[in-house]
Amino acid sequence: MPIKAVVWGENVHEQTDEVVREIYPDGMHATIAAALNQDKAIEATTATLQEPEHGLTEKRLAATDVLLWWGHAAHDAVDDAIVERVQRRVWEGMGLIVLHSGHFSKILRRLTGTPCALKWREAGERERIWVVNRNHPIAEGLGECIELEHEEMYGEPFTVPEPMETVFISWFEGGEVFRSGLTYQRGAGRIFYFRPGHETYPTYHNADVQKVLRNAVRWAYNPAKPWTTVADGINVPVGKTKEPLVEKGPKLNSHAKKPAG
Amino acid sequence: MPIKAVVWGENVHEQTDEVVREIYPDGMHATIAAALNQDKAIEATTATLQEPEHGLTEKRLAATDVLLWWGHAAHDAVDDAIVERVQRRVWEGMGLIVLHSGHFSKILRRLTGTPCALKWREAGERERIWVVNRNHPIAEGLGECIELEHEEMYGEPFTVPEPMETVFISWFEGGEVFRSGLTYQRGAGRIFYFRPGHETYPTYHNADVQKVLRNAVRWAYNPAKPWTTVADGINVPVGKTKEPLVEKGPKLNSHAKKPAG
Amino acid sequence: MPIKAVVWGENVHEQTDEVVREIYPDGMHATIAAALNQDKAIEATTATLQEPEHGLTEKRLAATDVLLWWGHAAHDAVDDAIVERVQRRVWEGMGLIVLHSGHFSKILRRLTGTPCALKWREAGERERIWVVNRNHPIAEGLGECIELEHEEMYGEPFTVPEPMETVFISWFEGGEVFRSGLTYQRGAGRIFYFRPGHETYPTYHNADVQKVLRNAVRWAYNPAKPWTTVADGINVPVGKTKEPLVEKGPKLNSHAKKPAG
Amino acid sequence: MPIKAVVWGENVHEQTDEVVREIYPDGMHATIAAALNQDKAIEATTATLQEPEHGLTEKRLAATDVLLWWGHAAHDAVDDAIVERVQRRVWEGMGLIVLHSGHFSKILRRLTGTPCALKWREAGERERIWVVNRNHPIAEGLGECIELEHEEMYGEPFTVPEPMETVFISWFEGGEVFRSGLTYQRGAGRIFYFRPGHETYPTYHNADVQKVLRNAVRWAYNPAKPWTTVADGINVPVGKTKEPLVEKGPKLNSHAKKPAG
Repeated sequence: MPIKAVVWGENVHEQTDEVVREIYPDGMHATIAAALNQDKAIEATTATLQEPEHGLTEKRLAATDVLLWWGHAAHDAVDDAIVERVQRRVWEGMGLIVLHSGHFSKILRRLTGTPCALKWREAGERERIWVVNRNHPIAEGLGECIELEHEEMYGEPFTVPEPMETVFISWFEGGEVFRSGLTYQRGAGRIFYFRPGHETYPTYHNADVQKVLRNAVRWAYNPAKPWTTVADGINVPVGKTKEPLVEKGPKLNSHAKKPAG
Repeated sequence: MPIKAVVWGENVHEQTDEVVREIYPDGMHATIAAALNQDKAIEATTATLQEPEHGLTEKRLAATDVLLWWGHAAHDAVDDAIVERVQRRVWEGMGLIVLHSGHFSKILRRLTGTPCALKWREAGERERIWVVNRNHPIAEGLGECIELEHEEMYGEPFTVPEPMETVFISWFEGGEVFRSGLTYQRGAGRIFYFRPGHETYPTYHNADVQKVLRNAVRWAYNPAKPWTTVADGINVPVGKTKEPLVEKGPKLNSHAKKPAG
Repeated sequence: MPIKAVVWGENVHEQTDEVVREIYPDGMHATIAAALNQDKAIEATTATLQEPEHGLTEKRLAATDVLLWWGHAAHDAVDDAIVERVQRRVWEGMGLIVLHSGHFSKILRRLTGTPCALKWREAGERERIWVVNRNHPIAEGLGECIELEHEEMYGEPFTVPEPMETVFISWFEGGEVFRSGLTYQRGAGRIFYFRPGHETYPTYHNADVQKVLRNAVRWAYNPAKPWTTVADGINVPVGKTKEPLVEKGPKLNSHAKKPAG
Repeated sequence: MPIKAVVWGENVHEQTDEVVREIYPDGMHATIAAALNQDKAIEATTATLQEPEHGLTEKRLAATDVLLWWGHAAHDAVDDAIVERVQRRVWEGMGLIVLHSGHFSKILRRLTGTPCALKWREAGERERIWVVNRNHPIAEGLGECIELEHEEMYGEPFTVPEPMETVFISWFEGGEVFRSGLTYQRGAGRIFYFRPGHETYPTYHNADVQKVLRNAVRWAYNPAKPWTTVADGINVPVGKTKEPLVEKGPKLNSHAKKPAG
């Protein structure tokens, strides 16, 4: 059975800006989904901000193995309830790949617990993405670096937690550097942040970038059954302990109403 | 100048439960603050849920180096705006020490991005907290373990991110284990989670527990100036680049309204 | 093509001790290899200390995807040249699974850079291995814990580096705890340390333990081509730079003899 | 009492190369030690390859809090017994700061368990060291980056383990990037690798570089008593257990000769 991927696109610039529409006539999400579908092991569909529940209903998310997220102009327009729903599914084991300006998305900030801020410049400069963790599954099939002739600059400090793995680091023509490929785990879910992908450049048409996206979907996929109790405080009373145990010591008067944990 | 520590106490059980009041007649927060003040390098005061703004005004937090957090029955009663304020200060460099049932506090869940769930049992059983990272500053002056005759059990899996450092791991009489001392960094702020401290036992009167709290305050203290721009997307335009750079490539039509990053 | 696993056994206790021989008549390595071969995706063979080059010739190692290592009484008898050879292959991408008393093996100490010391007791006590990272591939198919009625105790502090992932933590009847499943990466190679497996108990006949071993082989397998230059200092001279560069500044007189890096 | 730092210099280029001698007439180690001694909290002395036992006797190391290491042309000339002695002291709690071409030193390779290889080019190009972890103690007092007009290039992939913290990342004029400030812990010892410092450039005269070195010495200093048993397998026999325990199960015939662990 193929990995079910959903490419979530904010889909704003594509509707309002001719430059973007020319590069991505069907939307960036459509281009990304098409790139994923070149891998027979992946079955990618799309969802956008404008759909009911942003296209991310409980049912849809329950059937999603890996979610990709691109947003920029409308982070605040994403409903908090949907963000919580996505976070919950990541905890349960759904993979999440956050793309480019998605660094400031509600979902990445929530899952990392950090502001995810950075320096930036839109000047069409050259970016060279160096492969740091060479034999990592996400880097499979790449050379020593990916060169993008025109990209937006993101510069350090990138205020995220120290990652589980640093896969890529970028060099920029204007003099900055950036950790461009970072992995995290939250609950049972694997998270990958991938830097490039500014809307006014054809980055998602680049063969190496597309390869990274396919690799990342395979890497983020967790075949285990969803961990549905991941957020539950679970009481293990005396009588159900692994070792024989006699209750002792003082306790709260109103035990019945005791909060979990 | 001493380290300014604020001990935040939910202060509910102390008001409603005789068992707790007997052990902590002035509140758990008062006992903890007194323990900290035994160290001349620390100046500890208290704040509680019931005070205006939970005792954590902008001004108070700006003057706080390290915040300690104990909560249990009333996590939901903590105002989201105050939680965001605390999170912001941690990002800027304020230390945070989360105690016992504070694992389910809004602030720890926000800063870790995880549910922070666990197994639990209130049976007054024996806990043995093993020192895993022996010469870590937080373990200074301890023996190989701390024994607590009566404690609430917390059991793995503890759904938090893999920590920066594992300082303590607990053994429980009923058969469980738990990572009882974990460190994290978020922005410029250091975070320490310390497990023991159930309200119906005299844990915060234990000399070793008090030593850990003092050590942790010293460890979490960041003398650097607050990182006030930690959450800002900072534009570095052409003309202000480190390397000479000529603008090129396409850009959004409506550049003036471009969102940060 | 199946994953090629080699189970390396020290094979000393099996030859000299009746108790061990009764439990593992063909050697522990044979029992482990048979357990791995229950998975059609794995093709496991064995090697022992007593064979020429300990059964780990250059050719054999070059054809090995994942190496499992059990040693105890004869760590010092392992040839340093073979240890270096194994280390080199791990750097290139071969997976390594170190078992039980292999904690003190030359290979684990070399790859972690630490003494890998611990407390121990051979008293046949009960061990309960808790699953901490529940949906990790190595924990696939397990319940919340593995119970072993008789095992040797290993106690913290286990002097290893903070791991990439903490998969298991053990509880012992005598009162200790231990991080029983830890992952690392060195170069392109993934490493897993798995605690249980004392020679006088039938641990490797346990169905859950066997499952962990199979899972770990699949997890440690890196399908990428060996990273043969992983240890090389690679010169990138002017003329071969990614950006145009003019040589400048002073340099060593005797440039020709300049050491790498 | 001040922190006792020893700056170990290979002291080869200074003796054989006029270019180096002009920049560092008393040796690089002397320049570095003088920079450290500007901090009243530090008392720095030097040691060199040419001295008996390379200047690192048991007695000297026992009295050393933090060791700095610069080597390049003569890594192989360092006696393995001295390397083991240094490693042992790091495990016990001595801080270690490895400088520039020390990346290929025996001691860093041993402590990380990796080849520590990289790309390199001696072309006097511009290096810009970006501060990634802004309020880290090692970055105290720095601006957003350090600029060095002439440096040797080191490029990724740098084959070291994922660090505890990434403090600095460098940008190079020729198009490469490098993780220039990385922290590790091994046993009780803290380790910092700091990239710049090629012998033919005046890098150690740079005020910011000197500041980093002083900060790093303070950070790496562990005031705890040396962990002298860090490498010992410690037996905890029945009768000395924390919990009452009855010996059971089979055991090796020749128990008396049982190896540790």
